[in-house]
Amino acid sequence: MSTSTTLHAGNEDGRIKIALIGSGTIGLSFAALHLSTNPNAHITIYDTRPDLETYIAQNLPNYLSTTPELAKTYRFRLTLASSLSDAVLKATIIQEQGPENLPFKKSLWANIEPHAPKDALLWSSTSGIPASAQSADMRDPSRLLVVHPYNPPHIMPLLEVVPSPSTSQDLIDRTLEYWRGIGRTPIVIRKEVTGFVANRLAFALFREAISLVNDGVISVEDLDKVVESSMGPRWAVAGPFKSYHAGGGEGGLAAFMKNIGGTVKECWAAGEEIKVGPGGKEEGWVEGICEQAQEAYGVVDTKERDRVTRDVLAAIRGGTKIKDINQEV
Amino acid sequence: MSTSTTLHAGNEDGRIKIALIGSGTIGLSFAALHLSTNPNAHITIYDTRPDLETYIAQNLPNYLSTTPELAKTYRFRLTLASSLSDAVLKATIIQEQGPENLPFKKSLWANIEPHAPKDALLWSSTSGIPASAQSADMRDPSRLLVVHPYNPPHIMPLLEVVPSPSTSQDLIDRTLEYWRGIGRTPIVIRKEVTGFVANRLAFALFREAISLVNDGVISVEDLDKVVESSMGPRWAVAGPFKSYHAGGGEGGLAAFMKNIGGTVKECWAAGEEIKVGPGGKEEGWVEGICEQAQEAYGVVDTKERDRVTRDVLAAIRGGTKIKDINQEV
Repeated sequence: MSTSTTLHAGNEDGRIKIALIGSGTIGLSFAALHLSTNPNAHITIYDTRPDLETYIAQNLPNYLSTTPELAKTYRFRLTLASSLSDAVLKATIIQEQGPENLPFKKSLWANIEPHAPKDALLWSSTSGIPASAQSADMRDPSRLLVVHPYNPPHIMPLLEVVPSPSTSQDLIDRTLEYWRGIGRTPIVIRKEVTGFVANRLAFALFREAISLVNDGVISVEDLDKVVESSMGPRWAVAGPFKSYHAGGGEGGLAAFMKNIGGTVKECWAAGEEIKVGPGGKEEGWVEGICEQAQEAYGVVDTKERDRVTRDVLAAIRGGTKIKDINQEV
Repeated sequence: MSTSTTLHAGNEDGRIKIALIGSGTIGLSFAALHLSTNPNAHITIYDTRPDLETYIAQNLPNYLSTTPELAKTYRFRLTLASSLSDAVLKATIIQEQGPENLPFKKSLWANIEPHAPKDALLWSSTSGIPASAQSADMRDPSRLLVVHPYNPPHIMPLLEVVPSPSTSQDLIDRTLEYWRGIGRTPIVIRKEVTGFVANRLAFALFREAISLVNDGVISVEDLDKVVESSMGPRWAVAGPFKSYHAGGGEGGLAAFMKNIGGTVKECWAAGEEIKVGPGGKEEGWVEGICEQAQEAYGVVDTKERDRVTRDVLAAIRGGTKIKDINQEV
């Protein structure tokens, strides 16, 4: 963890001011993450909802369930700003999770820029609107990049860091430094591609999943069980390249492709035949699959899911030396 | 766990005889699984390799590392058969993991059938040759089905149970009963599709992974980190349908698709553009990606991977009540 900058140790008053613009589920989750991992973090929330105070008091503690003391004391480290300029003034980090709407974001950053400190880190949590588009009306577009979380960010380690071609290297470096310093996994995405990387990968598998259910090969619930009992736990420990590289033994991925490459390509070709795409079987599939999901799961208990996810993440970090699980964020 | 049949409790001598045909890594892993989860299991191995005795003595104990007592005593519950007919005589379960070669498997089952007890469970571990093709020369093709593991089966819970259209329902039921009885996750695949389900899903994501690396969006190692810190742990706990159904809140998957469906389809369309397929960018990608994998990982320590995978599986099963991890198979 770096102590050479003010990113974790705080400014002259020992605090690091993090301004969160937008307090939906992502905003609250980020607030909980910063508060619980960085004792010097002071959060300022700006949101135009009229009941902001009540809303925060009712909802933020739910995100702090594993740090019960913090759930009582967080208010000493939280300010609700009455204006955007107040929120960003003196902020080290300014993180937006507003509506996924380009005109909104363009105007937001143009309004933030004149009030934010020159060296503030400007981050958008967008899942799809690239920094190059969001920064179009900024005087200095080098100040902005995308930091896309995997939900919910107070639990899941990944942050996709997606610079625009204009983003400064210094901003990228300091962004990585902040997230690494609080134990997260920031990964730089080198091009502003549609959906970035995590969603592209997940949706590719999701597409094949839909195709297989749609084709009557397996039910929604059984398909989930397949994933939960095979590639889920495997990829939690070693991603697909590492897994297949290991599968090739000493010959690595090259040996794997030599041995299994034919099967891999047959699977790709088979997937094409029943692919879900424009004009194909797409029409009508949503309803049947959604009905199956509803019947199988009703309303999912995400608290239980998140609790077990924490344990899985602890197991990955700690191996057999699992302990202090309740201390994990 | 069922006690109503001889599947777990054993026959008149209190033993259940499991014949394993082929003793490569899958065969040894299955041997370890049966031995360590079913105290009544007696394993008979048939393999034509000349050094079978030495080979088993040297390699099987590696698969029993979490049950050190068993690593010393397993020989009392293991027989090496000198002929195929000896191996299958009086067997309750006959499981083959021979070469992935249709003529071999057809001939194998035709040779096993006359010697096996009428009610024996005949299972092929193939990853791709359907039971309907393997059983072509059998007198009674209803006796065979595919039980495809996710490697290594002594650790990973999934078994894909893939009947042919001829497979008897009784065989399917008893197969599921056996695996459930020893705490595994058998899932019935309703059609004999190419690659079954797990590989189809995994390879669909793998394809998108290759495309993204090939397109310069991300490195092999960073892509693995993305998966390990996001969908891996998530899908270990809740498969893709359940996850997205939860993502839609009370509206479930239907609400998710309404909110995010546009992005999902944009990602699918973007994937098409850089897809790896015949005539496209396929030529030449293997080498670059394999080089990256080699440079990033060298030879993967699968013992460490498997150790952490056990912990992850224990976390999934046990939630916060993680204990006795070293007792897990």
